[in-house]
Amino acid sequence: MRFEVTILGSSSATPIFNRNPTAQILNINEKLYLIDCAEGTQQQMLRFDVKASRIDYIFISHLHGDHYLGLVGLLSSLHLNGRKKALKLYGPAPLKEILDLQLKYSETTLQYPLEFIATTADRRAIILDNQDVIIETIPLNHRIPCTGFFIKQKKRLRKIIREKVEEFNIPVAYFTALKKGRDYEAPDGTIYKNESLTLDSEEPKSYAYCSDTLFGEQYFEQIKDVTLLYHEATFLNDMLERAIQTHHTTALQAAQVALSVNAGKLIIGHFSARYKTLVDLLSEAQSVFPATELAIEGKTFIIS
Amino acid sequence: MRFEVTILGSSSATPIFNRNPTAQILNINEKLYLIDCAEGTQQQMLRFDVKASRIDYIFISHLHGDHYLGLVGLLSSLHLNGRKKALKLYGPAPLKEILDLQLKYSETTLQYPLEFIATTADRRAIILDNQDVIIETIPLNHRIPCTGFFIKQKKRLRKIIREKVEEFNIPVAYFTALKKGRDYEAPDGTIYKNESLTLDSEEPKSYAYCSDTLFGEQYFEQIKDVTLLYHEATFLNDMLERAIQTHHTTALQAAQVALSVNAGKLIIGHFSARYKTLVDLLSEAQSVFPATELAIEGKTFIIS
Repeated sequence: MRFEVTILGSSSATPIFNRNPTAQILNINEKLYLIDCAEGTQQQMLRFDVKASRIDYIFISHLHGDHYLGLVGLLSSLHLNGRKKALKLYGPAPLKEILDLQLKYSETTLQYPLEFIATTADRRAIILDNQDVIIETIPLNHRIPCTGFFIKQKKRLRKIIREKVEEFNIPVAYFTALKKGRDYEAPDGTIYKNESLTLDSEEPKSYAYCSDTLFGEQYFEQIKDVTLLYHEATFLNDMLERAIQTHHTTALQAAQVALSVNAGKLIIGHFSARYKTLVDLLSEAQSVFPATELAIEGKTFIIS
Repeated sequence: MRFEVTILGSSSATPIFNRNPTAQILNINEKLYLIDCAEGTQQQMLRFDVKASRIDYIFISHLHGDHYLGLVGLLSSLHLNGRKKALKLYGPAPLKEILDLQLKYSETTLQYPLEFIATTADRRAIILDNQDVIIETIPLNHRIPCTGFFIKQKKRLRKIIREKVEEFNIPVAYFTALKKGRDYEAPDGTIYKNESLTLDSEEPKSYAYCSDTLFGEQYFEQIKDVTLLYHEATFLNDMLERAIQTHHTTALQAAQVALSVNAGKLIIGHFSARYKTLVDLLSEAQSVFPATELAIEGKTFIIS
């Protein structure tokens, strides 16, 4: 099952040439999930050949402009391009008020169902549970209410060992039970243990999106052992004071999060416009957590 | 005096790869005036080396997203980049409500004075009169209230002929009066006619911005003899019905406007995303009005 994230934007509040503010697209089993939707996200999707029409879910972390100002434009374009399929939108409650006001004055009535689900930043909550994943909010500590998102694959059914079921002439009707872990009892009373007929499925993988936040331990437990952690790293650690003041994280701190939660891999992003090149941010994080990569726009990371 | 317009975006409602929705920057005597501010305008300014900090005035034609969704991001970036200088913003009244709501939920208090001046689309009105230009709204006929903008240079003072004033020993104290067209009377009673001492200044130039609108004659009189006309040309004329339905203009019609108002030159823009190349739109307009050019992003047109 495909489980990967493509970076569409990696800049913090103000855009700089060739770095757009935050947006990411998750491909989970060929369904697209958009996380944050900064200004310019539509252009980034065109640039990296992401089909906006395939998005089923959109998640907005918080209402700072660099995380959501591309949303109403995207929703309008989907409308103008004839979308009929429902879309689920998750974000802080006032987002609905903002969208409604903008659609009202542009006299736009969306031609597809848009279901809005309000998130809250005061506690973790499961906001989506479908056949592929469970998605939880991660309460973060920013200047305004802000949540991250923790996306965990579901444990898949066991895999049937084709040669074994043929060898023992097990009827197809029992396959679903086998996949669920049941043993098989033949008409002659012979018991075939499930472990001899099936293989365990892969361990579920997980992705945690943590932006924007002050460094703090309150979300460590929730994302423990995450396969791939995206964490904001707005500043180098020599600007720790500024990071604290603006409720952001430094590259060093992001790496400390990855180490503390035993992440498989770390991606850092949300870089301040003051950094023309990103090599120092990467080095700083790697000094603590070597398996760190930069959120380079257009780059796809397989969550495995 | 510099009087030129740079195209920052030329696409209509939905962006396409390498064509952004509408924004234009006017440089009038080294002051910058932004007309419309679609999503991505900040990135376009970075791309074409336009210093956003130098903008003194912003004009928004109407509240369709492809004309204003970059505004709150731009205003926020100016704030984050330390702007203290006042900014004047002109647009439909509800724009203020939208901005206030977005700034409220992002908990942003702009650190510079933002003066909002509401426009109305039911009559033409002078909305700006400074040392360089007079700017009037152009009531257009779109699906929602929409105004164009007519920018006319002021007639400058007459130019002193240096050799003549030296020849006749005219004191410097009289120069301002000369520039204003007064004659000079020497102490001996000799009258020096103004025409022998000064030259007339150049004829004022003008720029009309007409987007978005149904083709119609109601604004022709106002923009008669305009030096440079920008007119939307969303469709080719074979889509006239669609143009009428959506309150837009075809390339042929835009050229008819230019011809009817005796424009010096025409720029067409606001192209539908269906046109991957623009050559047919240009040919169609030039068949009626040869002095037509395309609104190519990054291109600067001198208004002369």
